Amino acid sequence: MCATYESLSKKQRQAEFTKVKSHFDSLKELGLKLNMARGKPGKEQLDLVSDILTVMVSPADCVSDGVDVRNYGELTGIPAAKRLFADILGCKPEECIIGGNASLTLMYDTISKAYTHGLLHSETPWSKLDKVKFLCPAPGYDRHFKITESFGAEMIVVPMTEAGPDMDLVEELVKDEAVKGMWCVPKYSNPDGIIYSDETIKRIANLKPAAKDFTLMWDNAYCVHEFDGDFVPFADIISLCREAGNPDMVWEFASTSKITFPGAGVSVMASSVENVAYMEKLLTVQTISYDKVNQLRHVKYLKDKAHTLALMKRHAEILRPKFQCVLRWLDQEIAPLGIATWQRPKGGYFVSVNTAPGLAKRTLALCKEAGVVMTGAGATFPYGKDPKDSNIRIAPSLPPVAELEQAMDVFCTCLKLAALEQA
Amino acid sequence: MCATYESLSKKQRQAEFTKVKSHFDSLKELGLKLNMARGKPGKEQLDLVSDILTVMVSPADCVSDGVDVRNYGELTGIPAAKRLFADILGCKPEECIIGGNASLTLMYDTISKAYTHGLLHSETPWSKLDKVKFLCPAPGYDRHFKITESFGAEMIVVPMTEAGPDMDLVEELVKDEAVKGMWCVPKYSNPDGIIYSDETIKRIANLKPAAKDFTLMWDNAYCVHEFDGDFVPFADIISLCREAGNPDMVWEFASTSKITFPGAGVSVMASSVENVAYMEKLLTVQTISYDKVNQLRHVKYLKDKAHTLALMKRHAEILRPKFQCVLRWLDQEIAPLGIATWQRPKGGYFVSVNTAPGLAKRTLALCKEAGVVMTGAGATFPYGKDPKDSNIRIAPSLPPVAELEQAMDVFCTCLKLAALEQA
Repeated sequence: MCATYESLSKKQRQAEFTKVKSHFDSLKELGLKLNMARGKPGKEQLDLVSDILTVMVSPADCVSDGVDVRNYGELTGIPAAKRLFADILGCKPEECIIGGNASLTLMYDTISKAYTHGLLHSETPWSKLDKVKFLCPAPGYDRHFKITESFGAEMIVVPMTEAGPDMDLVEELVKDEAVKGMWCVPKYSNPDGIIYSDETIKRIANLKPAAKDFTLMWDNAYCVHEFDGDFVPFADIISLCREAGNPDMVWEFASTSKITFPGAGVSVMASSVENVAYMEKLLTVQTISYDKVNQLRHVKYLKDKAHTLALMKRHAEILRPKFQCVLRWLDQEIAPLGIATWQRPKGGYFVSVNTAPGLAKRTLALCKEAGVVMTGAGATFPYGKDPKDSNIRIAPSLPPVAELEQAMDVFCTCLKLAALEQA
Repeated sequence: MCATYESLSKKQRQAEFTKVKSHFDSLKELGLKLNMARGKPGKEQLDLVSDILTVMVSPADCVSDGVDVRNYGELTGIPAAKRLFADILGCKPEECIIGGNASLTLMYDTISKAYTHGLLHSETPWSKLDKVKFLCPAPGYDRHFKITESFGAEMIVVPMTEAGPDMDLVEELVKDEAVKGMWCVPKYSNPDGIIYSDETIKRIANLKPAAKDFTLMWDNAYCVHEFDGDFVPFADIISLCREAGNPDMVWEFASTSKITFPGAGVSVMASSVENVAYMEKLLTVQTISYDKVNQLRHVKYLKDKAHTLALMKRHAEILRPKFQCVLRWLDQEIAPLGIATWQRPKGGYFVSVNTAPGLAKRTLALCKEAGVVMTGAGATFPYGKDPKDSNIRIAPSLPPVAELEQAMDVFCTCLKLAALEQA
């Protein structure tokens, strides 16, 4: 079948439906249990990095810059971990707070503190305001949106372009002083895999928001996460904001969750030294220190940016065939039919598929019926509401390639079926 | 000098002052740098437990109850860690949420969520209330008080007795529906080292607070932390509250910070399964999971309650001489003078000294002058204000005994000097 579905006669369409339905039924009978729901590394990646378990084995291994990491203290992290992350992110060590096992928690805590205590330039805690609005480039990361939703912010969708968020719209929206911030995944955006252009980043750094405490939530989750080709250098947003006269406008986040162990790594939040000092005062009440043993473990294992990039090349060897599998299925099975388009990312953890309007929910319901779990339809939009019911996030990292072949067979079949049902 | 200071004639007092002052000056000349400020374990204790670094060395070590702890998931913690903490605390595994490296963070987050989202039985988030009051048995733990202070709660001092908080007063105070909770360190209270009596605990579990979301912040920090004598069994507050018809009134907290590595251990919060389910919903937004590799590392190292208690006996061997040193100095140098009283704890991390009124600040200022850093005067009271300027918390765990001898020499000298200056 090489013609687009739109060009089919009613009879041809009926024949195609019968064929696709029959294949769907045969797939259902396999009783598959496959998961492409989350950006979860696979076992091979976990095994790749398991030497991190043995880089610290004795008391002598536990001293770094004169600090015994086994004891309390060093609230903002050990100096060696600040140097490592500054090297990776291109910022300065003194601009870094090294956190616990999850950058998501650092983001949640930042928004939470904005509500309960206010940020550096807040006139009042956000909980005291009648209205807080947050800009949400979409499709985007569902867990970002859940945070601002959970605190009752009004989320405003900003369409994503090939170059990042629609900046004409963003520049207009920030004139409203109720707009307090914007979620960004600037490199290999979740789910599109888009790298914000230099022009976009420059315009973001030069925003003139009405709210003095407007905050970029700059989630650089995939800062060194190329799976195809060499490391792509990326601007340091902290310097750019400083140069633009907005030194305290950004908090950048990153973690080692997709470098070492997911959920057992080390996170970082970075900003101006003034922001760091302010946040440190608030953090003093919340904790005595984060897990410095794990911080030092990561420093010993990752060493520096160059060594980390070499490790990421090995992750890439594992991930690339999975992404190639996804794209091969889409190119062969879906491209000719004119029922969806997709991105071809070179890094990150997702392939973002945009179906013809109204097909996403039904496609994923069919996938579920056939034993393939995907990120819920709509999840990539604020409030879980995709206005076109079109965006589907494919997360191919967890299953081995053999399972992925099956899962993509299911996915393509379900997408076709959804399209054919619709007419 | 064996007479009380009060009984001295002016001349005797002057002679004593000259003698003590001269000793103080000679101590000052030593240029000491000693720290008795925080309940920080010493290096010997850290070395004692450093085998924990090598209990997990390979991918095969990373699977527990079928869960690969190296990957995302298991928000409320791995089952084996729940079983371990339930064994230690005397509650049920399903009543436990296993957290990250700091129980203080779990406490902060609980209060924070009460303010931003409300607790299970809250009619409104606390941030929307005109007034939130919190009961603070004092002397108590400064970091508890800092949390409620940071959120703007009005803290009400409840005097500590030998049996725990003054329960007549507590029962009266909870009739005010603005009173939303109470901080408790029920076993080896910080700083007094008092174990709440069975009667006190029963009265606490049977409180009838006006506020439906009244919450006991039950920080069982020293649940297995005897340094003198055998483990003292302790009531399970969760059962008691359930039996009293207050199933959701308590959150219990604990951690391994003074069992394995301070700040690199595992924490727990425990309550009714209904409270756990409610909290899990809120936590889903904050994190994907806590560090399960470290959870499993602790399970493998600590095994169960019996094995943990055996380890605590070895900690006790290290700690006991330090407490004996503190008490010996106080008994010999201070007891005869009638200028202070103190507790004689058998567990926990502190000795609480109550000086004659008005001596605490001056004593600690003199200590600082002579190079000995102590917990700030007043820190054991809400807002840092000790109405009698009397309570001093001695934390003898960090310095080796030889240093502690010097530090206690300084402390006793400074206390005498402060008393002699006052007349």
